[in-house]
Amino acid sequence: MTQYENRLAAIEHYLTQKKYPLEPAQLYDPIQYFMALGGKRIRPLFTVLSAELFGGTLDNSLPAAAALEMFHNFTLIHDDIMDGAPKRRNLPTVHEKWNSNIAILSGDALMIYAFQELGQYEASTFKSLSILLQKTAIEVCMGQQMDMDFERMEVVSEAQYLEMIRLKTSVLLGCACAFGGILEKTTSTNIDHLYRFGEHLGIAFQIQDDILDAFGSESKVGKQIGGDILSDKKTLLYTTFQQRASSAEKAKHQYLSKASPEEKIKGIKQLYLDGQVLEYCKAMQEKHWQKSQDHLNEIETDVSKDGVKELLNFIIHRNY
Amino acid sequence: MTQYENRLAAIEHYLTQKKYPLEPAQLYDPIQYFMALGGKRIRPLFTVLSAELFGGTLDNSLPAAAALEMFHNFTLIHDDIMDGAPKRRNLPTVHEKWNSNIAILSGDALMIYAFQELGQYEASTFKSLSILLQKTAIEVCMGQQMDMDFERMEVVSEAQYLEMIRLKTSVLLGCACAFGGILEKTTSTNIDHLYRFGEHLGIAFQIQDDILDAFGSESKVGKQIGGDILSDKKTLLYTTFQQRASSAEKAKHQYLSKASPEEKIKGIKQLYLDGQVLEYCKAMQEKHWQKSQDHLNEIETDVSKDGVKELLNFIIHRNY
Repeated sequence: MTQYENRLAAIEHYLTQKKYPLEPAQLYDPIQYFMALGGKRIRPLFTVLSAELFGGTLDNSLPAAAALEMFHNFTLIHDDIMDGAPKRRNLPTVHEKWNSNIAILSGDALMIYAFQELGQYEASTFKSLSILLQKTAIEVCMGQQMDMDFERMEVVSEAQYLEMIRLKTSVLLGCACAFGGILEKTTSTNIDHLYRFGEHLGIAFQIQDDILDAFGSESKVGKQIGGDILSDKKTLLYTTFQQRASSAEKAKHQYLSKASPEEKIKGIKQLYLDGQVLEYCKAMQEKHWQKSQDHLNEIETDVSKDGVKELLNFIIHRNY
Repeated sequence: MTQYENRLAAIEHYLTQKKYPLEPAQLYDPIQYFMALGGKRIRPLFTVLSAELFGGTLDNSLPAAAALEMFHNFTLIHDDIMDGAPKRRNLPTVHEKWNSNIAILSGDALMIYAFQELGQYEASTFKSLSILLQKTAIEVCMGQQMDMDFERMEVVSEAQYLEMIRLKTSVLLGCACAFGGILEKTTSTNIDHLYRFGEHLGIAFQIQDDILDAFGSESKVGKQIGGDILSDKKTLLYTTFQQRASSAEKAKHQYLSKASPEEKIKGIKQLYLDGQVLEYCKAMQEKHWQKSQDHLNEIETDVSKDGVKELLNFIIHRNY
């Protein structure tokens, strides 16, 4: 994937070399720390590549790409407080390394800095980008609230689950792709296809994450397998099982919920296999993947889409 | 003040009648609840009046005015978490009525909604307003962090204190006043005078608050007197005393710090009176008040400034 390395390196450089004030240190140190933790930088990469589909240059798309990554990192800082997460990318989260108040405030500031990045574009582009990011940002908050609500709910329907992941994770990828089109002032039809491409791709990625958390290989996924099962997280596997299972299967699930961690993971995975739950989720992932490809194909441009397609292949195979 | 009642009623109506989605209720109920708690609505009123100085109409200035009040309320929701404050305007704060996670997330959403209000203006006005609000918003975060830092510091200089209140409270009033000028596309010199007018006024108001907390009359201020003294808050009275007091006076202050609440308040107020601390702070308040008036007088417009001046008189006298 050497052809992406220069873009990724430019994104990384832009994000980590950005100059923030030195004082107050308790406000800015956490921002610098968190932005330097790394990450796949998928969202900014999609902005850059989407802009390239219409002849856009890296220099021009970097501020918009950075805005998305900064916004994404703000959501992570605040989500980590809400989830009580001690680690992020194997290092302490902001509220762990400093405290919750500092994590709230530095997250707030990072969100404002994200929107401020867009100030580098002329007024009409600035307005289009800002309005889409504002709409997206509100949706991400709605998705996070739904996710928290689900923790206290016994039954979550498939529709509710899909709407939650659409809001919490997919709209931001849709926004990232649409940004590229807005930057290059392509048609609103193309911008809409870019958005839908990113949105369905985001849903497919999230379903893939759900599947890998239970059925992936530990060494490739890079984290312990079965975490979602252990915490009874409402994933697509969970909601599909609840919807399709017989009374006997539900009773077995109930019994396994209180079993030892090892037995719980192994037993529930078997239930998911026996009941064609895994199969159904894979089909659902494929459906959204296919929809994303349809929208990508609909985009009208003279520039080749091979680069984007190759990147998608790379991401899909890297994750498995 | 009947001439302001129609503006205040319009602002209140705009803020409380704004339609948010119904779901997720845990995200939107706190926003509706907090925005309905009321408040003096000073910031939006100054935007409306500043716009009127250049012939602006209420209808045109309302969205920008609302944006500032919504942003201000976002800061209150998050500050209340950080301060562990149980009440706001005699009612439970958001994190008390719901919980901290809900207060973090609904605050985040309210901040985005604040910026989104500006989307009602055409692109160049939208950009000017957004950029100023972004700059201001970051400064408010810096001020809040400095305020938190001060809690753990023994010595705070007058300069540090003034910079903290400038950032935490005054720049937003400066922004509110500048908004009126930006909306009506007046000269950059006028916009600068409007900003400085609001900024110095904000500093004068804050010093007045510090003084009233110790020397106001309980019935007029509407809260218990001496709270800042009891909590050893770094106010201008505190920093001035620390800077001017003799060793003997400092020793007495030290002794009084551990006395009963009643004795502590009474004794420290006497120290502030004997050491001309109160006198000095009043002079400082007057200095910033005078600067604000100078900037107001410098604004070039054919519209009378009497309305703004009358409002200022009203605010100053209402508070005493």
